[in-house]
Amino acid sequence: MEEIKKYIEDNKQRFLDELFELLRFPSVSADPKYKSDVLKTADYVAQKLKDAGADSVEVCQTAGYPIVFGEKIIDPSLPTVLVYGHYDVQPADPLELWKTPPFEPTIRDGKIYARGACDDKGQFYMHVKAFELMSQTGTLTCNIKFMIEGEEEVGSANLGIFVKENAEKLKADIVLISDTSMISMENPSIETGLRGLAYMEVEVTGPNRDLHSGVYGGAVANPATILCKMIASLHDENNHVTIPGFYDKVLELSDEEKTALNSAPYDEEEYKADLSIDEVWGEKGYSTTERTGTRPTLEVNGIWSGYTGEGAKTVLPSKANAKISMRLVPNQSSEEISAMFTKHFESIAPKYVKVKVTAHHGGEPVVTPTDSIAYQAAEKAIEESFGKKAIPTRGGGSIPIVALFEDVLGIKSVLLGFGLDSDALHSPNEKYDLYNYYKGIETLPLFHKYFAELSK
Amino acid sequence: MEEIKKYIEDNKQRFLDELFELLRFPSVSADPKYKSDVLKTADYVAQKLKDAGADSVEVCQTAGYPIVFGEKIIDPSLPTVLVYGHYDVQPADPLELWKTPPFEPTIRDGKIYARGACDDKGQFYMHVKAFELMSQTGTLTCNIKFMIEGEEEVGSANLGIFVKENAEKLKADIVLISDTSMISMENPSIETGLRGLAYMEVEVTGPNRDLHSGVYGGAVANPATILCKMIASLHDENNHVTIPGFYDKVLELSDEEKTALNSAPYDEEEYKADLSIDEVWGEKGYSTTERTGTRPTLEVNGIWSGYTGEGAKTVLPSKANAKISMRLVPNQSSEEISAMFTKHFESIAPKYVKVKVTAHHGGEPVVTPTDSIAYQAAEKAIEESFGKKAIPTRGGGSIPIVALFEDVLGIKSVLLGFGLDSDALHSPNEKYDLYNYYKGIETLPLFHKYFAELSK
Repeated sequence: MEEIKKYIEDNKQRFLDELFELLRFPSVSADPKYKSDVLKTADYVAQKLKDAGADSVEVCQTAGYPIVFGEKIIDPSLPTVLVYGHYDVQPADPLELWKTPPFEPTIRDGKIYARGACDDKGQFYMHVKAFELMSQTGTLTCNIKFMIEGEEEVGSANLGIFVKENAEKLKADIVLISDTSMISMENPSIETGLRGLAYMEVEVTGPNRDLHSGVYGGAVANPATILCKMIASLHDENNHVTIPGFYDKVLELSDEEKTALNSAPYDEEEYKADLSIDEVWGEKGYSTTERTGTRPTLEVNGIWSGYTGEGAKTVLPSKANAKISMRLVPNQSSEEISAMFTKHFESIAPKYVKVKVTAHHGGEPVVTPTDSIAYQAAEKAIEESFGKKAIPTRGGGSIPIVALFEDVLGIKSVLLGFGLDSDALHSPNEKYDLYNYYKGIETLPLFHKYFAELSK
Repeated sequence: MEEIKKYIEDNKQRFLDELFELLRFPSVSADPKYKSDVLKTADYVAQKLKDAGADSVEVCQTAGYPIVFGEKIIDPSLPTVLVYGHYDVQPADPLELWKTPPFEPTIRDGKIYARGACDDKGQFYMHVKAFELMSQTGTLTCNIKFMIEGEEEVGSANLGIFVKENAEKLKADIVLISDTSMISMENPSIETGLRGLAYMEVEVTGPNRDLHSGVYGGAVANPATILCKMIASLHDENNHVTIPGFYDKVLELSDEEKTALNSAPYDEEEYKADLSIDEVWGEKGYSTTERTGTRPTLEVNGIWSGYTGEGAKTVLPSKANAKISMRLVPNQSSEEISAMFTKHFESIAPKYVKVKVTAHHGGEPVVTPTDSIAYQAAEKAIEESFGKKAIPTRGGGSIPIVALFEDVLGIKSVLLGFGLDSDALHSPNEKYDLYNYYKGIETLPLFHKYFAELSK
């Protein structure tokens, strides 16, 4: 432990400079205009894995963005840890809301502000540095493999194919992922579940051209109005999703599970104050912790129609569009739910309009075991570095790869994340605390140590 | 009449070239980035009035865009016609839907395609050329004044002030306006009413920043979803507007009025085919003609929230916005209705969000008399040039100035428009038929002739 702390102390500034360099690449996978930047990012990650001591480092081409692979096999008889992360980031807009440029990392009161600071560059890079630390100090206790992809924020479309085709190369005993949050540094926690995702795009078409709202208004259905009515109908008065069959496969938690889940620290006043809202919202009969962790949801991620510029334009628009995504919980299938949504949305379209529904990426929900050697290793590592027991929580986010790994490779995952819900992932002014970054680099070698010990 | 036709024939090409020059100015009043173009347009109009023979031509400055004034007083004892028009145009977007550039007028099968071709450059310029024709052929029978403004498409905010301050200068016996449509060239018509307008912009704010839809989805109200629910509630199941008091002052038509109104040619199959819609929409219990001409309406002109770019972004947006306008009918007041809307919209906002409502420009509805000398002069002019009686109709659009003129100057208006509903006003590929342009130039001198005769 002292050795770990010393190495980090001696290399503190370099660890930060390297992360900053990584954060300066605008590796936005959703927007084609950043293609060359995303590719440069992959090369940078590969170079850093080599520098840290990895062998057979490869930038593996796919139909989309490449996957960076690297490994260090010290002894085939020892357990192998497969580290997964992603070097792509969410779009940065709305840009005007950033205090400092999203791709010019800036430190303000102990926090690194940049797109990807926490999700996931800051977090996966902790593993690269922890690996360097173990190699340099000769304290590697497990074999290690890295698989850092560039399409997580757009649904990891090509990762499944890659994993199927490289099952042998990816063989490991556990997948270790840092792409989730803790309750706080005072209340370290480990996520034991993730929600799945179904992401849809809808287009409602009324007249074949934009019309003068005076000449035609009142006589021709307005697709924006119709889309609003359709979206409004997707939640009932108790905020349950109205898509037939949506909840059919959802498991209700046992009272014990509910109690355990709700025992996690949660201060509603703080929660509301942080978001400047007067009231929380959600499905009647469930707590905020249950709503975000254990219940499926439906959210409008974007909507647009008609004139959205300066001033006034009296137009009756021809089209109205929306992006609508659903978070899924165990037993729900992304494909089934996407099909249900499509069928339902088409069925509620009035005869005045035409509706087109297309599915973006999806991902399956997962629950990770808490009785495994790997989970125990994570618990011990946290207890040693934080001096506190970790609280198991259910995360609201989605990491499609976790389910994929179980299905294709039969390997479980441990979600050892060091972010915070307040890190503003996917929002302007995303940040990652310096403390968390270094704390992660300190904790990860302990995971490897205990995972090796417990595997004996 | 022969003299008129000959003069038009001899100057056909020049009349068109001058209009094209006028149409090339992107005089979009709603968008500040076109400011210098709008100003250049005013100067061009002033020059053309001088060329046509107008005296004391002025580009009158206002707090906004200037108003171009010019006149020709041949004999103070003769009646005076005040021509009103506007040189500003609607924004041209969505640009990608234009077959040819909006500010590069192009002729396709006998039609001029350009933003403003019909609304209102093509129409007011007919008056300038008709005036030139009368001056050149020494057939002026009335004094004439021109007032061409540059803010009609943004609500004529400064025109009211100008009119009040220049009542003496604007003194006239009738206001003549060509900014409306006819049923068709086979069914010439004169609009005898216009709807008023109340244009609102709303902003719904949820959390203080965009959020990760996985981490917060299901526990925090989504302003896009809430805005959709609020907009959905503005029309009931029979498509009546639900704002309390909205219809209180609306007059129901008498059976006679209904019969007269519905006797105007209307082919629903043609109407639907032109717009590629399967069904017309609107208030239960009213015909399309009644819905657009005699009933107030509420339309979403624009809506935007969250991520609207390429691909998928799992964001729970902080804000959702919409532009919503209402067309008003006689007895409704733009100010009253704006206040009603604001009060109602704020009242239906759930406690999870904050709502801001702001009013853009408004305009009052009007009905023009059909028993006046001016209306009869218009009827006779049309009968002579079209060889057919004009059908009185109710227009769905709004020209705020008409009500303003009655209030401030006590002058009635005649709406002698030569456009067609199919001219795609406010839409991509706006057009104006060459036939209508020349037909207007031919008809207007006849109006002056009969107005003078009937005024004796």
